[in-house]
Amino acid sequence: MTETLRALQEMRFDTCHRDFLLTWEHDDETIRGILALARLLKDWHRSGRRFPVFRTGLAISIFRDNSTRTRFSFASAANALGLGLSELDEVKSQIAHGETVRETANMISFLAEVIGIRDDMYLGEGNRYMRQVGEAVQEGFEQGVLHQRPSVLNLQCDIDHPTQTLADLAHLADHFGGIENLRGKKIAMSWAYSPSYGKPLSVPQGVIGLMSRLGMHVALAHPEGYGLIPETVERAVRQSSASGGSFVQVETMEDSFRDADIVYPKSWAPYLVMQSRTELLKAGDREGLKTLEKECLATNARNRHWECDRKKMNLTRDGKALYMHCLPADITDVSCPLGEVSAEVFEQYRIATYRQAGYKPFVIAALILATRFGNPAEALLPFAGDGGSR
Amino acid sequence: MTETLRALQEMRFDTCHRDFLLTWEHDDETIRGILALARLLKDWHRSGRRFPVFRTGLAISIFRDNSTRTRFSFASAANALGLGLSELDEVKSQIAHGETVRETANMISFLAEVIGIRDDMYLGEGNRYMRQVGEAVQEGFEQGVLHQRPSVLNLQCDIDHPTQTLADLAHLADHFGGIENLRGKKIAMSWAYSPSYGKPLSVPQGVIGLMSRLGMHVALAHPEGYGLIPETVERAVRQSSASGGSFVQVETMEDSFRDADIVYPKSWAPYLVMQSRTELLKAGDREGLKTLEKECLATNARNRHWECDRKKMNLTRDGKALYMHCLPADITDVSCPLGEVSAEVFEQYRIATYRQAGYKPFVIAALILATRFGNPAEALLPFAGDGGSR
Amino acid sequence: MTETLRALQEMRFDTCHRDFLLTWEHDDETIRGILALARLLKDWHRSGRRFPVFRTGLAISIFRDNSTRTRFSFASAANALGLGLSELDEVKSQIAHGETVRETANMISFLAEVIGIRDDMYLGEGNRYMRQVGEAVQEGFEQGVLHQRPSVLNLQCDIDHPTQTLADLAHLADHFGGIENLRGKKIAMSWAYSPSYGKPLSVPQGVIGLMSRLGMHVALAHPEGYGLIPETVERAVRQSSASGGSFVQVETMEDSFRDADIVYPKSWAPYLVMQSRTELLKAGDREGLKTLEKECLATNARNRHWECDRKKMNLTRDGKALYMHCLPADITDVSCPLGEVSAEVFEQYRIATYRQAGYKPFVIAALILATRFGNPAEALLPFAGDGGSR
Repeated sequence: MTETLRALQEMRFDTCHRDFLLTWEHDDETIRGILALARLLKDWHRSGRRFPVFRTGLAISIFRDNSTRTRFSFASAANALGLGLSELDEVKSQIAHGETVRETANMISFLAEVIGIRDDMYLGEGNRYMRQVGEAVQEGFEQGVLHQRPSVLNLQCDIDHPTQTLADLAHLADHFGGIENLRGKKIAMSWAYSPSYGKPLSVPQGVIGLMSRLGMHVALAHPEGYGLIPETVERAVRQSSASGGSFVQVETMEDSFRDADIVYPKSWAPYLVMQSRTELLKAGDREGLKTLEKECLATNARNRHWECDRKKMNLTRDGKALYMHCLPADITDVSCPLGEVSAEVFEQYRIATYRQAGYKPFVIAALILATRFGNPAEALLPFAGDGGSR
Repeated sequence: MTETLRALQEMRFDTCHRDFLLTWEHDDETIRGILALARLLKDWHRSGRRFPVFRTGLAISIFRDNSTRTRFSFASAANALGLGLSELDEVKSQIAHGETVRETANMISFLAEVIGIRDDMYLGEGNRYMRQVGEAVQEGFEQGVLHQRPSVLNLQCDIDHPTQTLADLAHLADHFGGIENLRGKKIAMSWAYSPSYGKPLSVPQGVIGLMSRLGMHVALAHPEGYGLIPETVERAVRQSSASGGSFVQVETMEDSFRDADIVYPKSWAPYLVMQSRTELLKAGDREGLKTLEKECLATNARNRHWECDRKKMNLTRDGKALYMHCLPADITDVSCPLGEVSAEVFEQYRIATYRQAGYKPFVIAALILATRFGNPAEALLPFAGDGGSR
Repeated sequence: MTETLRALQEMRFDTCHRDFLLTWEHDDETIRGILALARLLKDWHRSGRRFPVFRTGLAISIFRDNSTRTRFSFASAANALGLGLSELDEVKSQIAHGETVRETANMISFLAEVIGIRDDMYLGEGNRYMRQVGEAVQEGFEQGVLHQRPSVLNLQCDIDHPTQTLADLAHLADHFGGIENLRGKKIAMSWAYSPSYGKPLSVPQGVIGLMSRLGMHVALAHPEGYGLIPETVERAVRQSSASGGSFVQVETMEDSFRDADIVYPKSWAPYLVMQSRTELLKAGDREGLKTLEKECLATNARNRHWECDRKKMNLTRDGKALYMHCLPADITDVSCPLGEVSAEVFEQYRIATYRQAGYKPFVIAALILATRFGNPAEALLPFAGDGGSR
């Protein structure tokens, strides 16, 4: 049995038979346990060792928005653990209401171990929907409808994107030689220009919500009017202080990049715009939506200089900060005329961003194990002796 | 080895290497065997015992109509038995004709164990299509095209919905403490109002076609012009008489509910309308279809009082009949302004309807086992010793 | 251990950790090895022996064109080998460019063993796209992004359709009692009329590119203006000469059929038209496309007599040539008023064409094994003792 597995057996997870919806709902030991577990699974896979801990059972995915990367990461994690995948494709426009959610959640769950949901379109909706699903299967389990209560996994909501940010953290831990080495490091979470101006807030919110717990110096930068959900920023401030790090908000990408060890320049939609949009959509106000779009495009165009280029990268520590992106990036002259990052900077870190993404299937597998088993390491024990054969 | 499994080994099934298309094509012992098998699988799953009897092989599903519940039940059953799922999504409008059906049936079946089909849109079409698929794979098997002849499972056609009604029966057996205890009980199969007026006839036809075999008193109620396919009613009459039960047709929901132990109020489209609709669709007569829809809506509107409310429930035995529904129900003030059932009655039985649905994956798994193995219990033997681990 | 397996263990494959894109990129021993492997898997499956050599892992399919037969063959092969299937449905109109292909190829491949691609719409595009995917995962593997480099399988491109032609060859080998017996046989690859005039060139090109290596006499026939990609014809000429066979081009279906042992009459689009079409599509020239379609229909209509009927079949050796088709065929009076083959001729060979298709899942499984394992037979060894139980 490997050392890592033995260490993992001693770790305590607060996730068993719970949902995993927001990283800040789980304690530090659990976060570290998830990372250790993900790393073990990645090492095992690299060495050809397989770990189908489930003999049968379904992983259900509900994608209320298009997705390729997360869809394949979830499919990969499910398959690696021995689960079958069943996808529920909901028509996006069909707004699910109470009874429909309760009923459907139970109808799809009779043999389910986990339900992964992506619902990031409307502020105030996605995370609420996930909680409704969680409550529905909890009721179903308590009432004897379901033999087991499947765990709900947040595959991106309006508030957080935990499978992304945990993969980001795993990548950082590897890059800097351990999670402890992140203490004192500076990370810049900066808005960046994109011609596609309606991207979700979940990544920046999730990044500051997770990295602020590790004693890092977090700098958040965005143009006026592009604020995040206020509670997510307030939480990051509190957490930074508690973890011995710091949190600052600055007004330019340049200011955030100065002496940074890590930069995460990424476009997102203004919070207030997303709020208005959600209301206009609910009211079916087409004229209002058109006007809003016009305003957004005008505001967006004023911030075209928020591009991560070589000049700004040179402001980082020794000009060598680690560039991160959740992909796909809007790359100037590659995917659009002007985007989040210059072609030259992106090309330098292209492979690094692929590696960053490579943690996601294993993070998802770790989350599934951690929400299904009191001691995930013990569930893996039968596969530890397996000598690297696939 | 469990007692149940031993008892099952003695049971004789008439299903081996046959299709399962209509419950009344199978004898009483087989029906009881399917139920016993479904119950065993459900118990095993609840206790954490798994039963992947197939090492590899495909379960193919062909859905010629939208479906969430049946789709997931079939996916769950396939996964539980160790089969992979492949879905064939046919464009609904594309009317399959002879050679296409023959060829496609063989092309998808080279490694298939079972083909589940849902085709309930047009009277006279769905069941016929299933038989064509069955004949095509039979020919393919006899001619050496296929190494094995996959079984065709009816996942709902224009005549019957056997996986639903067998799940209904499993639910009743559990609720009343055994299938024998259903003898002498009264079940009301009643039409109910719904703003969506084109629902298939398969559930009411399937319910009277199955429950009339068990010595129950079956009362069928619907407004004038909402008759079922005459042959299905005639069969129910014959079967009721043969089984020592009775069969009556009444003209109001109230009459059917009086002293009922079980009520199944559910909307369906008038048989004659469905027949006209099928002909108009074949002829591509758009004007005719519009006129027909108008007439239907007018007729339908005249029957808005066919709602299962508390007052009607009070007519049942001690006011405590078991309410059943195949879901999703049209619930007044919840899913529509006026529907099949009042919110208050539905809420009382909501969890019971979820439980009713919960038998379906295990019924489908039982049908797959029963059509693939001469002695399904023996196929399960290797998993009987498994001590509840998943 | 079976004799066949022992013989297979001695065979040398040039496919390990390579892509399989064009049959002529692989040597004769490999082609024979693939056929022997496919045959073994087919025999094992027929006898009930299963061979899930992978415990977990994904087979990814990318279909950039509609497909039922190839989709199910790939799904069947993946399942039989123990792989899970994940399908990437790309919007057809979305033309993938450099960075998108590189990135997506890596994002879907973290746990992938094989990527099957169908992209046959535009000349010069499909095969190039497959090579881009191959290069992308090669880079990902070398850079440590991917733990293993998945193999890319050509499920039909603009140049070749190797899983089809290898299945065709397996069928011929069985029909004539061994691949050696094909030497000296005459095969007619002839264009045939179809009202659907835009079919890919990959099947005729693939057939002459493979059959010309076996000492066969290949006769290619098509109307003026329906030429194949010149390089594919030139290669067939060279290969025929090298293998001791011959290659002729004739101007009528009749001439190609004369004394043929095998006939493969099938519609395809004119090469020059496909080239113009690709350019017009790239330029977004709608008027040009309309004009081109008009011209095509007119040209096509002039060749309505290219139908495989009894009279033409009577010209073949003893009037008994084996008719082949990759299905679905356009059958006169069955699927269209006038098509590639008369109803009477097709009916005579209908079951034979089904059998021909039946090799495809096993050919794909053989290709997966041959690209994943240095010695595919050894990967199968653990299953050889399995006594025919499923």
